[in-house]
Amino acid sequence: MASRSLDQHAAAVRQLLAPLGHDRAVETISLSASRIAAAPDAYRQRTLAHDVVSPGDLPPFDNSQMDGYAVRAAELSGATPDAGVRLRVETQINAGDTISAIEPGTAAPIMTGAPLPAGADAVVPIERAIPSHFRSATETDGGSPLTVEFTSAPGADEFVRRRGSDVARGELLLPEGSMLGPAQLGVIAASGLTKVDVLRRIRVLLIATGHEIREPGTALQPGQIYDSNSAVLSQALIDAGCTVVAWPCRSDDAADLLHIIEKGAPTADLVITVGGVSAGAREVVRDALGPLGVEFSHVAMQPGGPQGLGLVEAAGHPSGIPVVTFPGNPVSALISFEMFVRPALRRLAGSTRVEREVLRLPLAESVDSPVDKHQVRRASIDTDGRVRLVGGPSSHLLHSYAASTALVHLPVGLGHADAGDPVDVWRIDD
Amino acid sequence: MASRSLDQHAAAVRQLLAPLGHDRAVETISLSASRIAAAPDAYRQRTLAHDVVSPGDLPPFDNSQMDGYAVRAAELSGATPDAGVRLRVETQINAGDTISAIEPGTAAPIMTGAPLPAGADAVVPIERAIPSHFRSATETDGGSPLTVEFTSAPGADEFVRRRGSDVARGELLLPEGSMLGPAQLGVIAASGLTKVDVLRRIRVLLIATGHEIREPGTALQPGQIYDSNSAVLSQALIDAGCTVVAWPCRSDDAADLLHIIEKGAPTADLVITVGGVSAGAREVVRDALGPLGVEFSHVAMQPGGPQGLGLVEAAGHPSGIPVVTFPGNPVSALISFEMFVRPALRRLAGSTRVEREVLRLPLAESVDSPVDKHQVRRASIDTDGRVRLVGGPSSHLLHSYAASTALVHLPVGLGHADAGDPVDVWRIDD
Repeated sequence: MASRSLDQHAAAVRQLLAPLGHDRAVETISLSASRIAAAPDAYRQRTLAHDVVSPGDLPPFDNSQMDGYAVRAAELSGATPDAGVRLRVETQINAGDTISAIEPGTAAPIMTGAPLPAGADAVVPIERAIPSHFRSATETDGGSPLTVEFTSAPGADEFVRRRGSDVARGELLLPEGSMLGPAQLGVIAASGLTKVDVLRRIRVLLIATGHEIREPGTALQPGQIYDSNSAVLSQALIDAGCTVVAWPCRSDDAADLLHIIEKGAPTADLVITVGGVSAGAREVVRDALGPLGVEFSHVAMQPGGPQGLGLVEAAGHPSGIPVVTFPGNPVSALISFEMFVRPALRRLAGSTRVEREVLRLPLAESVDSPVDKHQVRRASIDTDGRVRLVGGPSSHLLHSYAASTALVHLPVGLGHADAGDPVDVWRIDD
Repeated sequence: MASRSLDQHAAAVRQLLAPLGHDRAVETISLSASRIAAAPDAYRQRTLAHDVVSPGDLPPFDNSQMDGYAVRAAELSGATPDAGVRLRVETQINAGDTISAIEPGTAAPIMTGAPLPAGADAVVPIERAIPSHFRSATETDGGSPLTVEFTSAPGADEFVRRRGSDVARGELLLPEGSMLGPAQLGVIAASGLTKVDVLRRIRVLLIATGHEIREPGTALQPGQIYDSNSAVLSQALIDAGCTVVAWPCRSDDAADLLHIIEKGAPTADLVITVGGVSAGAREVVRDALGPLGVEFSHVAMQPGGPQGLGLVEAAGHPSGIPVVTFPGNPVSALISFEMFVRPALRRLAGSTRVEREVLRLPLAESVDSPVDKHQVRRASIDTDGRVRLVGGPSSHLLHSYAASTALVHLPVGLGHADAGDPVDVWRIDD
């Protein structure tokens, strides 16, 4: 069996999955807040299939950035505290009002977001203006126009948001490949668009294998265990933006596994198998997929050493369907996903954050690791910022994994680290 | 209007929302990989309502950690390379087999995960054993039992996963308040449980306000804009684990806003309003909610200065329903959410990662900020690890926000920073 470094295998998985980036079907989603609220899953981590061009200017009209007075800046060019300039007050402009105009020698009270009137080219914030009815308690408007005094000169365009200053009509609103989050959905709404084309999610056929696995809730015979890998990897794949069909193979017979693949491949983009890849007799994944060209290798990491990948002939897949095989212990399978598949899927989904958050933290306790392997341990972060291992290195300790918020990386060549030594830590709680 | 620091307002929002942690209804979700795959939204960021105790031992029986030979360790205590110990080979034990037994003087080939036979207390990995049929090409079993030779002494329990070594029956499987991710769903499945009680999601009544806002896709009159806040905050709230009902209020009339709250409050846990909080005339949120006890204050931050919060009397809420009011510019609203509401919601959802990932990065360019305010700017991270501002500070630049992957914090008292100066950066791409 071929031996590979962790980086070599990660690159091989990335390369195998790369065609899923550009070969995917496109679907149109309707955007509105009520649709997002009613069917959140349809909007989670969607990736734009094409560039989206702005159908209009944002903002769509010149408007005020402040509550204040719309003025002609030139009229106030001489204003100082000693020589204020007084203007007649026009009708107040509110957000939602249609676009009005002001005459020379006037100022219009204007609310934030309200359209700047024709003729005005600056807004003076309310706190910098002295309206006449505040000058003295005895002064009243008595039917004559109120006035407002300004004691400084605004710059042209000051506190004005010009039409198209965020994005102009015909400019790129969002580029192809953008992942749609709150701000992206918002700017699409702001532009008035109600539909966009997104990439269809990557559809994964997930096959947990093992003669011994049983559906949770059923009765176990001695020697049998509940299938946890289907739940673990369904959720992990969904979190990475995929859709999943989970069809376990509870048989040692290669024909049964091949039948599941034959049935599921036409509506899948990727097959992930779990288990059945050891060196033993009756390893269903090796027995079934080895002859079809899946290459099995041993990656210098722990857990998760036995890995496989390849393209397998299948209906609906002229170049074959990509298959990635994980080892069967739940911790091995989830670590395999973290190291090899998650980054590739995140990249394909257009995420700008492909990797986990990496911290460099001191160990709370000393640790030994196999010198020839990259060991990944489960851990939590103490309040003092030290990283503390949770459970041992063994790959059956899923309960320890579930109590962890971090992974600790002990690279090839390390062998031993003392308490206080810094190590690379991935935060996995998100 | 009261003035508050950013930290003071964050603490006030956290305190207002704190009762949502323990006063929420509980609902039962059924767990299986096929349900997770079919209805992913039901399993996203769920929070355990109670401690979950393990109904059985994990693993449920002693089993082998390796492909190898199940042996009695004491029988091999004298084995050395010069004086190997030879044992008779028993029938192979596969994963899924029932629990067997070995007699003294024998070793049973055993596969990873297969049940350790009664009598055995250690597993010797296959690569450390010398089976008789590998000794010489001419040797055959000839009907007599094959033998296997061992040249080193295994420790007791070596490569054995003891029943209950991950978690024992009756031990805590997951504590109340745990957020359910892949590993947590997996360990529940491994235990055989198919239902757990989770907290009902926090139900948010989201009310974007403004005489000028219109539903995207409809025709705009001059002076009107499309409502982007409903989409922005619906998605942001869903990402934080909530459910949302988005009912915009496109009126300046306080009675209209109060009607929406009256209608929506009985099935909501929290009201968030957007807009209508400036100092101007006809500010619908201030006009409607000020008299009902919502306290409006000015927070020393930019954007997002005008903030409000309080408990408002409503049917179904004996202590009043919590109301948080954001300013209306989309950038202000989303920054308000990031600074005040998202951390509080994440904490309530049981996330161990309440805050965004914080980096300390050098600025790509110099920047000025208001010395008396905490300014939050939108930014991206250059490949060389410097942080580059995207767009200006103005709160209408939602397009710039949508092109950003980070927020830059320019704290009170800063005023100016040079290119290369380190600043606090939040990654917002996830």
